Amino acid sequence: MNAKDEIFMRRALTLAKKAIGRTCPNPLVGAVIVKDNQIIGEGYHKKAGLPHAEIEAMNSVKNKNDLKDATMFVTLEPCNHYGKTPPCSIAIAQSGIKKVVIGMLDVNKTASGGAEYLKKSGIEVVCGVLEEEARKLNEVFIENKVNKKPFFVMKAAMLLNGSIAVKGGVSKWITSDKALRFSHKLRGIYDAVAVGINTIMMDDPLLTCRIRGYKQPKRIVFDTNLRITVSANIFSKYVNNVYIVTSLFSSASKKKVLEAMGANIIECEMSNGEFDSKDLSSKLIENDICSCVVEGGSRTHGYFVKNSLYNKAYLFYAPKITGSYGAFNAVGSQAPSNLQDVSLLKDMSCRKVGCDILVEGYF
Amino acid sequence: MNAKDEIFMRRALTLAKKAIGRTCPNPLVGAVIVKDNQIIGEGYHKKAGLPHAEIEAMNSVKNKNDLKDATMFVTLEPCNHYGKTPPCSIAIAQSGIKKVVIGMLDVNKTASGGAEYLKKSGIEVVCGVLEEEARKLNEVFIENKVNKKPFFVMKAAMLLNGSIAVKGGVSKWITSDKALRFSHKLRGIYDAVAVGINTIMMDDPLLTCRIRGYKQPKRIVFDTNLRITVSANIFSKYVNNVYIVTSLFSSASKKKVLEAMGANIIECEMSNGEFDSKDLSSKLIENDICSCVVEGGSRTHGYFVKNSLYNKAYLFYAPKITGSYGAFNAVGSQAPSNLQDVSLLKDMSCRKVGCDILVEGYF
Repeated sequence: MNAKDEIFMRRALTLAKKAIGRTCPNPLVGAVIVKDNQIIGEGYHKKAGLPHAEIEAMNSVKNKNDLKDATMFVTLEPCNHYGKTPPCSIAIAQSGIKKVVIGMLDVNKTASGGAEYLKKSGIEVVCGVLEEEARKLNEVFIENKVNKKPFFVMKAAMLLNGSIAVKGGVSKWITSDKALRFSHKLRGIYDAVAVGINTIMMDDPLLTCRIRGYKQPKRIVFDTNLRITVSANIFSKYVNNVYIVTSLFSSASKKKVLEAMGANIIECEMSNGEFDSKDLSSKLIENDICSCVVEGGSRTHGYFVKNSLYNKAYLFYAPKITGSYGAFNAVGSQAPSNLQDVSLLKDMSCRKVGCDILVEGYF
Repeated sequence: MNAKDEIFMRRALTLAKKAIGRTCPNPLVGAVIVKDNQIIGEGYHKKAGLPHAEIEAMNSVKNKNDLKDATMFVTLEPCNHYGKTPPCSIAIAQSGIKKVVIGMLDVNKTASGGAEYLKKSGIEVVCGVLEEEARKLNEVFIENKVNKKPFFVMKAAMLLNGSIAVKGGVSKWITSDKALRFSHKLRGIYDAVAVGINTIMMDDPLLTCRIRGYKQPKRIVFDTNLRITVSANIFSKYVNNVYIVTSLFSSASKKKVLEAMGANIIECEMSNGEFDSKDLSSKLIENDICSCVVEGGSRTHGYFVKNSLYNKAYLFYAPKITGSYGAFNAVGSQAPSNLQDVSLLKDMSCRKVGCDILVEGYF
């Protein structure tokens, strides 16, 4: 690996990020084509079904003869299978490109093998340039393929001692406008936003992303007994984007009413009185929900923490503190009696966002 | 105010800080004497009963003739009364010094008036240079004099959702060694450390400062019904530094036993089944406890938060999270039903201390 390789790979990573929140179930990929130390072509994967980054980059080079002896920098191993598009590995091998520098190998067994194919075709292949950055870029995709589950993100707005609502469930507004804006961005970046039915009953949120330029998320409600009413705000806009996760045994007629309105019903297996976490994960993946930011409330976070489903946390702390008796804690589930049994966060960082503190970390 | 004034005043502030944790009930004060833009003398107040900073600075000038036409920079208005030492105002007026630059005026009515006296004596007086820093330096002293109460500091080590202990009260150790070390420094900086009787029963702490070069704090236990046992660890060292705050009605014979051991008993008025906060504050001040870091547990923090007694908070968050049911929250008191009724923190900041996050702020 050398410094120039890193510069071009960093450019490819930057390109890849342009499609953040839009490529599900595909990974984010960027590609740069370089000849004589000059970038002659660039591309990134914009959306599932559209061309891969490598093809976009090659297409961006007007005179195809220029590809001869060029080097391609691509954040993810070129695919080697016929999906919605033909294999990039073949297209590269036929292009005249003589060297391919790869960020990370594909963790998706179905599509991987591109690096091997290229080598066999006589192309020089270098792997692992800015691999850590490439893996972080595709943390959602990796979680989907390796653990067969959505990348679940915990988002909570708390008092300094962990309450997300005071007595009676009052939570508007604990944190400031800037924190709220950040939360809306998360809705635009991840595929879906989810809340429990209690949050719907209490706050009646829209759950849309209200920042221009960001996509609208799918909106999920965890509602075992289908207590949601047809007049809930969540149905007032983009109703096709609403997914109600419920048990097999909740009212069939209500399911029909909600489906007739355009909402999606996801029937999930139960296990010990709550959603079976494996079935929940598969059902969400089946519905092209690769990532999901869970906004609460207390019991919903409790369920996700207890079942070790979370991958990442965005925790906001307002400069406020008060008694906890009768308040709603961020994590509404049983505490262990041993400190060894708590969930740990890695790479924890903190910073001010407006007058609040944002703590980020990985489970 | 000019840039040179600030440089010399900053030096005076630095000198004052050398005695941090040792001047109670007096303020921290530093003084610098300048002639022809050169520092010719320096001093700071080391301990109650010892000379004031101004006298120390004048004494540090070997040839007293050099004081003629010199300028003194002092962080706090020179005193104007006979306390344990005679008034600095007179000594300065007699020294030949022609100008005095003051950080902040004294909030202590008994000692103030020095600036006025100096002016009347024909000395040029400038007030308010780095006043904000001077006030922050003496936040404890100001609280004592203005609100007639100790400067109370909340210190808590929490999980990310506010628990200070999991089920059964297990709290060892939530945070890392670095956070623990920081807590010991707080014990060395503030006059006293305090815990509730439940913490004594559960953790049996020593509450000493275990960092070299720092003073030992007074150690306070809030123990309404005098449940503490004579074998508690806290009595194993520096027993004269132990203060048991209890009600007038707890066992008189046990009070005698504890006093015979060398511990101090503070009898506090009760109000609605808990210590009367005004009487508590007066009794602590009477015992030369000007500042006190309260380490918990849950109900003790609850009492201090509910009664708006806290001035400052040091809140540690470990990179850990778990269910809250059955856990001990940092603030064990009733939540309000309105977000307007929570306690607010000003000047909140955050930073990593080891693998934990430290949040600081002022109530």
